[in-house]
Amino acid sequence: MSNPSLLILAGDGIGPEVMNEVKKIIGWYGEKRDLAFDVEEDLVGGAAYDAHGTPLTDATMERAQNADAVLLGAVGGPKYDTLDFSVKPERGLLRLRKEMDLFSNLRPAQCFDALADFSSLKRDVVAGLDIMIVRELTSGVYFGEPRGIHKEGNERVGINTQRYTESEIARVARSAFELARRRNNKVCSMEKANVMESGVLWRQVVTEIHEAEYPDVELSHMYADAGAMQLCRWPKQFDVIVTDNLFGDLLSDAAAMLTGSLGMLPSASLGAPMANGRPKALYEPVHGSAPDIAGQGKANPIACILSFAMALRYSFDNGDEATRLEQAVERVLADGKRTADLLGPEGGTPISTAEMGDAIIAAL
Amino acid sequence: MSNPSLLILAGDGIGPEVMNEVKKIIGWYGEKRDLAFDVEEDLVGGAAYDAHGTPLTDATMERAQNADAVLLGAVGGPKYDTLDFSVKPERGLLRLRKEMDLFSNLRPAQCFDALADFSSLKRDVVAGLDIMIVRELTSGVYFGEPRGIHKEGNERVGINTQRYTESEIARVARSAFELARRRNNKVCSMEKANVMESGVLWRQVVTEIHEAEYPDVELSHMYADAGAMQLCRWPKQFDVIVTDNLFGDLLSDAAAMLTGSLGMLPSASLGAPMANGRPKALYEPVHGSAPDIAGQGKANPIACILSFAMALRYSFDNGDEATRLEQAVERVLADGKRTADLLGPEGGTPISTAEMGDAIIAAL
Ligand SMILES: CC(C)[C@H](C(=O)O)[C@@H](O)C(=O)O
Ligand SMILES: CC(C)[C@H](C(=O)O)[C@@H](O)C(=O)O
Repeated sequence: MSNPSLLILAGDGIGPEVMNEVKKIIGWYGEKRDLAFDVEEDLVGGAAYDAHGTPLTDATMERAQNADAVLLGAVGGPKYDTLDFSVKPERGLLRLRKEMDLFSNLRPAQCFDALADFSSLKRDVVAGLDIMIVRELTSGVYFGEPRGIHKEGNERVGINTQRYTESEIARVARSAFELARRRNNKVCSMEKANVMESGVLWRQVVTEIHEAEYPDVELSHMYADAGAMQLCRWPKQFDVIVTDNLFGDLLSDAAAMLTGSLGMLPSASLGAPMANGRPKALYEPVHGSAPDIAGQGKANPIACILSFAMALRYSFDNGDEATRLEQAVERVLADGKRTADLLGPEGGTPISTAEMGDAIIAAL
Repeated sequence: MSNPSLLILAGDGIGPEVMNEVKKIIGWYGEKRDLAFDVEEDLVGGAAYDAHGTPLTDATMERAQNADAVLLGAVGGPKYDTLDFSVKPERGLLRLRKEMDLFSNLRPAQCFDALADFSSLKRDVVAGLDIMIVRELTSGVYFGEPRGIHKEGNERVGINTQRYTESEIARVARSAFELARRRNNKVCSMEKANVMESGVLWRQVVTEIHEAEYPDVELSHMYADAGAMQLCRWPKQFDVIVTDNLFGDLLSDAAAMLTGSLGMLPSASLGAPMANGRPKALYEPVHGSAPDIAGQGKANPIACILSFAMALRYSFDNGDEATRLEQAVERVLADGKRTADLLGPEGGTPISTAEMGDAIIAAL
């Protein structure tokens, strides 16, 4: 049997640096654990634009479709800010999500004990926090048509369309309920059903799926603005949150920041099962390309490493190794090792991206 | 000369209770300060639905159009959750905003010194915080057409349209720049120009207005997800934030919660100047109708009272009295007077809605 295949798309900014540490860890697994992967690498985002004039070539798209899992670093940077909308680095990522049909974006917001004091929130509000935001990732206002900027009379008008079908809502709802069953059995669904009909349909379909298939899970509903408030007030009230593409973008970023662990948080984007039973999958850190610190060996590789741990769990059915890797990260943090972003106002001596990767391998 | 006119729409839940304290204060101004208003009262939201089968009658709409300012309490409640979308309590409020063309929604997020410890954020992150969120209030996905739920094949599909014209963006941008000039001269504009064309146009128009008319104001741009993060991380980096209707809904609620002063925060919704030079205006607390505590005399009337202070400042050109009223509120808080919502985990003895109103009048 051949090894499972991984496509690595390191992307822009700090993407290549943090991905480098993941490659070391993948190498370690092949040598020490007999868990080898066939790794290919390719370009995405600004890096692909620089080489090919497009943020994702058809050839790369095809490789992503055929890989057992895709690992992505980050895309974007000020260098590309003036590019036309259609070739912006982000379009590469959005094309991957859409064409691989990765409808369920899992974004854990977890507070690492060693970093609880690093949050802007009080310790007791965030310590021990462990929630999972499930964001719909292939529809809504990100992809709805019509869209664009056109002229009406002598005015420009900008248009986007928020559009959700019943089945799009149903499948992401199922994925949230399934996750909740393996966690604390609670789902909170967020929309703006009080002002948007797409939110009314969202609430209806989530309720129907709940009644028909997951009556054992506790379901609540919240308007997204109230959800943003409650995340800031007392995030521990939540277990799994399910929401649409745009609300999920804002709410998961806010939640990630609240944990104080932004440079630490991974994500998994999952689609339907492939012929081999594995879901289509892309794993990436929640943080961006951080162009201000790119190339300086300062970046924190943990979010990218934990994204690989999610790959072990969700693509390769190896929850044990995933947990082991996560525990290695926690041990390194408990030992007081910190990249620059993890140093509070008290300061301290930061270690480099590579040193953090090495420390995690040593802890493994 | 006749007195300026006020239309009071107390609405649902705690609306009538908190508005009662505002009426006492209005009465006090008439008696003690020779600042009398002609006050009318009418119904909105669930209360209007119960009486007339609609959350806002045409007659009430007409009175609102003719008033010098409208004061609104709150709308909504679980009793109305199953109502058809078109007669939900919220539709009454949205009709007022739309037909009065109240495009500029001012939402101060301010941390009251006496309450800084009450925030879920650390004291140094929020103490002294004073930012102003300017939310576009009459367009975007709240009002765009087409909208609704329809069938495609045997699937339901929910649709809303995000739509902004150049002039809609320009006028709210101007209102943000004007405010910034009277504050710390900084505006941060938030959208998702990386994924939405309506955001691309938003950024363009804000930049154009800035260059042509307000080059003296410092302007920056941020993606709304990063904005949500930065609000949670270090809100003091902001002075004025300008954003669209939907992002403004989430971001201002999150910001309000961060201050720890949710029951304290007022808002003003302003339109174009009327014949008498006053802007069309509606003032309302940021908090909702809080049905769980309605009718118990527990609600905090301060947000509603400070909304009246905003009316004094923005509709009646009486910044001095507005400041005096705001200072009276601060004095009462500094004295340790607290409604139930302002008691931290340490507890204490709460005062009632009416006692809080009386204390503020005494401090005046
Ligand atoms: C880079 C950008 C297109 C993306 C998004 O808006 O989805 C990012 O913010 C995210 O959350 O993954
Ligand atoms: C009540 C509701 C319609 C309203 C909104 O979504 O605008 C509220 O959340 C607000 O922020 O004023």
